[in-house]
Amino acid sequence: MAQVSRNKQVILTDYVTGFPKQSDMNIVDSTITLKIPEGSNDLVLLKNLYLSCDPYLRILMTKDTTAELGALTPGSPLTGFGVSKVVESRDPDYKKDDLVWGMTKWEEYSLIPTAQILFKIEHTDVPLSYYTGILGMPGMTAYAGFFEVGSPKKGENVFVSAASGAVGQLVGQFAKLHGCYVVGSAGTKEKVDLLKNKFGYDEAFNYKEEPDLNAVLKKYFPEGIDIYFENVGGKTLDAVLLNMRVHGRIPVCGMISQYNLDQPEGVTNLAHIIYKRVRVEGFAVFEYYHLYTKFLEFVLPLIREGKIAYVEDVAEGLENGPAALIGLFTGQNVGKQVVVVAHE
Amino acid sequence: MAQVSRNKQVILTDYVTGFPKQSDMNIVDSTITLKIPEGSNDLVLLKNLYLSCDPYLRILMTKDTTAELGALTPGSPLTGFGVSKVVESRDPDYKKDDLVWGMTKWEEYSLIPTAQILFKIEHTDVPLSYYTGILGMPGMTAYAGFFEVGSPKKGENVFVSAASGAVGQLVGQFAKLHGCYVVGSAGTKEKVDLLKNKFGYDEAFNYKEEPDLNAVLKKYFPEGIDIYFENVGGKTLDAVLLNMRVHGRIPVCGMISQYNLDQPEGVTNLAHIIYKRVRVEGFAVFEYYHLYTKFLEFVLPLIREGKIAYVEDVAEGLENGPAALIGLFTGQNVGKQVVVVAHE
Ligand SMILES: NC(=O)c1ccc[n+]([C@@H]2O[C@H](COP(=O)([O-])OP(=O)(O)OC[C@H]3O[C@@H](n4cnc5c(N)ncnc54)[C@H](OP(=O)(O)O)[C@@H]3O)[C@@H](O)[C@H]2O)c1
Ligand SMILES: NC(=O)c1ccc[n+]([C@@H]2O[C@H](COP(=O)([O-])OP(=O)(O)OC[C@H]3O[C@@H](n4cnc5c(N)ncnc54)[C@H](OP(=O)(O)O)[C@@H]3O)[C@@H](O)[C@H]2O)c1
Repeated sequence: MAQVSRNKQVILTDYVTGFPKQSDMNIVDSTITLKIPEGSNDLVLLKNLYLSCDPYLRILMTKDTTAELGALTPGSPLTGFGVSKVVESRDPDYKKDDLVWGMTKWEEYSLIPTAQILFKIEHTDVPLSYYTGILGMPGMTAYAGFFEVGSPKKGENVFVSAASGAVGQLVGQFAKLHGCYVVGSAGTKEKVDLLKNKFGYDEAFNYKEEPDLNAVLKKYFPEGIDIYFENVGGKTLDAVLLNMRVHGRIPVCGMISQYNLDQPEGVTNLAHIIYKRVRVEGFAVFEYYHLYTKFLEFVLPLIREGKIAYVEDVAEGLENGPAALIGLFTGQNVGKQVVVVAHE
Repeated sequence: MAQVSRNKQVILTDYVTGFPKQSDMNIVDSTITLKIPEGSNDLVLLKNLYLSCDPYLRILMTKDTTAELGALTPGSPLTGFGVSKVVESRDPDYKKDDLVWGMTKWEEYSLIPTAQILFKIEHTDVPLSYYTGILGMPGMTAYAGFFEVGSPKKGENVFVSAASGAVGQLVGQFAKLHGCYVVGSAGTKEKVDLLKNKFGYDEAFNYKEEPDLNAVLKKYFPEGIDIYFENVGGKTLDAVLLNMRVHGRIPVCGMISQYNLDQPEGVTNLAHIIYKRVRVEGFAVFEYYHLYTKFLEFVLPLIREGKIAYVEDVAEGLENGPAALIGLFTGQNVGKQVVVVAHE
């Protein structure tokens, strides 16, 4: 007879308006039969190990979200990126004990269509949790956004916002490896120190303590910015536009400062896109997964040889997931925010 | 002895703030010696025939303009695009009676460095004034912006603002020739009629009579916009961003609605650049003049075979230049605004 297990879940209680709160999510003790139902040959049963806290989840918590991925469903567990172990599979591509990363649910065990698995994990000499970050979606985001969308050239001037986060810490280091001058902004003194002392940023500043963002950018970029890796939007973007160099590029990765606002802030300096012939380009990591093998060949040696730093912020236990997730929007996380569901 | 001639000029009286006014420019009766001074071998003496009224001139009237071209100088004649006849040349590339277009001054005769001439006019079976428009800078702008920056594909949905103007009337027709569905916006009923009945736009609307730009765009683009040819900025751009299709492109040609504002309007829907992976790209026509011959090969046959319509708004006499120029910013012009200095 199939084993029935406890299945702790993080349930979205209702659509979210404004900043997400702890009460927007509920921890529920559910149960699950650890067996794939008969006739469901496109499903795998996963034991979830690490879950990824990602800012885009907030966008999916808005009712009638315009995001292509579609809204999360109140009353159901959150869905998101995670690292999981296969408990049972009817798909010949996966077998028991395979490790995978892809879309899973915020719960201990998940029945998931195999199509939601993105990649089988082949390299386990690195921490498994890295597949929620540097070796997972945020790593691919930094790689595709900087190299494919940003078209960097050696010696160019690069500015990164949310620079100590999951994506930002990698963009800065990729840019340094590429021979660029790199400046980052972040929201605490601790993060600014990390940027300069751990991630190798040439300069960094705390945007919350700068009354005049235009002036601080002018100071660090007297010749202007060639690439602005956009993570935050709003006031930062507006100041950046005044400081772009001719033929500058703005890969638009995210605008986290806008996700919780009912009425987004107005950006006023867009005419500089003409004056400086700037290319502003939105991108989505899911259009670049065909580069994943190439990306691993690039980044795994850097990790193994200690040539790239990587900082994770680890929350232990699913019950601490909601606080970890909402912490992204107040900058609580230092580095990539991970939730540990089980250490294997 | 060298002939001395009257040389009527349009002088910028002072830097401009807000909407330009008639009193920002002065008509002055100056004189000029119709002879290139000794030792000035890089100058040509031009008789100006047609001057081009272009919105960017307003940007150059702002003190400390951020435009790369540099500000206009109070007390001096305006500089801008024009069609001229060579009166005298010491440069072997130009001889008396050659017709040229390029940067000249708002006056009857101009001494100009030959480097400011852009092209010698080779085809005179078409009206000479066309070299201020369809065969000149605005024509090249429409061509480069639509084909090079916009990367159009047959069957795509194109929206053009300031659609009946110098650039817009051509973009719409190029898009139709390319097999696109094209909608334009303009500021009067007369212009909307022109768009539909003369320039072949599939649909057109008067943006001044639409209280809800988002709704009207949704009506004309139920599947979204692939290419927005941006001429105006501000509220129109904000509504367009809500209606872009995945992988849409926004060639940013101009933002005329912002040129006269001390504090530009805020654009709030920029996050859609991410959601729809939109490419927003500023461009300047002067980076595309190497395509001019190719452009003429494309557009001259269209003109000769009557396959393209072209509407000019002609002001007679330099003294009517200031009113014609400031009329751009209230939409007085219907089609390309030209000032006739002399009919040869
Ligand atoms: N396009 C894609 O495919 C894709 C994929 C992944 C991520 N993204 C985007 O990339 C960005 C970074 O994501 P991540 O995973 O690396 O997150 P993260 O940086 O690890 O965490 C979010 C950080 O954003 C900063 N932040 C929060 N509110 C802010 C505000 N109002 N103004 C400025 N900064 C604020 C906080 O750092 P501070 O302390 O520095 O404020 C916070 O730590 C997000 O916008 C996300 O949506 C896009
Ligand atoms: N990037 C480049 O290299 C380049 C080169 C040439 C031109 N441009 C730009 O292209 C655009 C069109 O230039 P053009 O020469 O073809 O001018 P135009 O369309 O012939 O004349 C300007 C038109 O803009 C419209 N307009 C004025 N104020 C407006 C406002 N507040 N909101 C909306 N529309 C407004 C008016 O038409 P309505 O009656 O329809 O309002 C007016 O007729 C301008 O932004 C210009 O700066 C850029």
